[in-house]
Amino acid sequence: MTHEIAVIPGDGIGQEVTPAAVEVLEAIDAVDFDFVEGAAGDAVKAETGEALPEETRDLAADADATLFGAAGETAADVILPLRQVVGSFANVRPARSYPGLDAVQPDTDIVFIRENTEGVYKGIESEISEGVTTCTRVITEDASEKIAEYGFSYAKGNGYDDVTIAHKANVMRTTDGLFLDTASAVGEDRDASYDTALMDALAMHLVMNPQDYGVVICPNLAGDMLSDLAAGLVGGLGLLPSANIGEENALFEPVHGSAPDIAGEGIANPSAMILSAAMLLDHLGYDEQGDAVRSAVESVLDSGPRTPDLGGDASTEDVTAAVIDEL
Amino acid sequence: MTHEIAVIPGDGIGQEVTPAAVEVLEAIDAVDFDFVEGAAGDAVKAETGEALPEETRDLAADADATLFGAAGETAADVILPLRQVVGSFANVRPARSYPGLDAVQPDTDIVFIRENTEGVYKGIESEISEGVTTCTRVITEDASEKIAEYGFSYAKGNGYDDVTIAHKANVMRTTDGLFLDTASAVGEDRDASYDTALMDALAMHLVMNPQDYGVVICPNLAGDMLSDLAAGLVGGLGLLPSANIGEENALFEPVHGSAPDIAGEGIANPSAMILSAAMLLDHLGYDEQGDAVRSAVESVLDSGPRTPDLGGDASTEDVTAAVIDEL
Ligand SMILES: CC(C)[C@H](C(=O)O)[C@@H](O)C(=O)O
Ligand SMILES: CC(C)[C@H](C(=O)O)[C@@H](O)C(=O)O
Repeated sequence: MTHEIAVIPGDGIGQEVTPAAVEVLEAIDAVDFDFVEGAAGDAVKAETGEALPEETRDLAADADATLFGAAGETAADVILPLRQVVGSFANVRPARSYPGLDAVQPDTDIVFIRENTEGVYKGIESEISEGVTTCTRVITEDASEKIAEYGFSYAKGNGYDDVTIAHKANVMRTTDGLFLDTASAVGEDRDASYDTALMDALAMHLVMNPQDYGVVICPNLAGDMLSDLAAGLVGGLGLLPSANIGEENALFEPVHGSAPDIAGEGIANPSAMILSAAMLLDHLGYDEQGDAVRSAVESVLDSGPRTPDLGGDASTEDVTAAVIDEL
Repeated sequence: MTHEIAVIPGDGIGQEVTPAAVEVLEAIDAVDFDFVEGAAGDAVKAETGEALPEETRDLAADADATLFGAAGETAADVILPLRQVVGSFANVRPARSYPGLDAVQPDTDIVFIRENTEGVYKGIESEISEGVTTCTRVITEDASEKIAEYGFSYAKGNGYDDVTIAHKANVMRTTDGLFLDTASAVGEDRDASYDTALMDALAMHLVMNPQDYGVVICPNLAGDMLSDLAAGLVGGLGLLPSANIGEENALFEPVHGSAPDIAGEGIANPSAMILSAAMLLDHLGYDEQGDAVRSAVESVLDSGPRTPDLGGDASTEDVTAAVIDEL
């Protein structure tokens, strides 16, 4: 069986790390892929006036899964519609520290399960009168239930004992109240153990005691911030993969952006992108191969060549080759 | 001149640390205070049905300044209306690490200037239909300008060179767009140097490189999270004071809560509350005395008795006495 994968490198280092991930996937003999490339981002916008052309949208919609690199200024215009195109309701963001790498908190292994369809991301904004603007944050029972089901299943399936439901229901009593009640009810129904945490207090505890956390189920914007916070704990965005999971489709992207400062130099760290490809393998049912890619990345991080962001002087290509060697 | 100070200890350790701060203020010969105590919080609610009785509201409204301890379950019902009563538009939250104390990032000295009147804190929520809820986030030009003016003045007056405007304008283009544009315009008008930062990326950078930040001007909820994050960097909430600044009135409170787990044992760390009292002194124009209290707390933190949260076995009273001794 051949899997059609849409590949959207985007801007900046997206152009460098995406081919690296494709190379790694191509090196996996057990799985056949058909890669089809689409354009998106600042460069395409400059050329065509559109950051996310119709053809690219269609590619992602029709593929079995999508690999997305990064976009620059147009990031929101690219990634938010792409998440919709693939029908993604869950944004899965693992943040873990690796032995031997500098980290603010070297004992971190947390997976953020971020609701991916609503909250302030609905984009309902207006200028009510001059200088007075509103943004309507939407929280529904359906979406809250779906993300909680996904989060509790993920925790169980991946061996995480600690599940935390993040919220700010003391202030947003109706909306986050609904999120909290719904997600808690899912936990009760499953007889799962879980905690709930105000997201401000959680931000503090994550910084001080990340080892106390496993899976964190969050509303959309809270998940955006908390997962970046955790990226800071484990040494930055260079190592963080993510998955946007839909019912029948999914998109995989590194948490980092297009890094214009180092783009074009061939020194971008491809690890986050390769780890995103590993999540793609899991998603298509190739858990064993996904694990193999993760182990390969880990062993390269431990004792292989390192790109400058990790204090080395290796190139993207060196690291990619080393990962493929380890497979 | 005698200053009337409303004192609202509230629940839990609020009952222990608030008297400590009052003792310290009483020890300052140069300033005369008249303390009037008001009740608020869980205990009052259990008794009277109201977490914030009318009399307490009036006390805070009429006083020159208010000292607030902490509230338990009813925290939001107490502190949000109190902030309104004192007309607070700016929530000032310094997060700094102290030499000799364990901290995730021992080189942190950041002051969050949090907008204190709008955003999701407007409390405009509804259930649109069954299982579908909304929260209307409000951002106005007036409030954004006011907080930015305050933030830039604060930075200048307190010797901070780095000013950062936090926002999420790539997603909340209209609301945070207005916040960002308005705050940036204030910076331009003043010929001040400043940076702007997406609040998710900022969360990461604050964790990794807090020494790069000075004053951070934030929308309300972002400020809530980011300041708690920073509390984690400097060793937790036990040391963080805050000020809610209004045009003619102000309220000072520790960032920590009522800590029911240790309440009643007399071992709560009074530092955050005493440092809040120091901010009260600054606010009333007694900068020298404010500095003296801060120095006293610092020297006790450095080599005086410590409460259990900092690894010592001293009592609240021991620490308070030591601070007064140092004055
Ligand atoms: C680029 C931006 C719209 C996006 C988001 O807010 O989701 C990014 O921060 C992310 O986390 O993937
Ligand atoms: C208790 C709560 C309403 C409050 C807030 O969200 O402002 C608290 O978290 C704070 O930061 O003072």
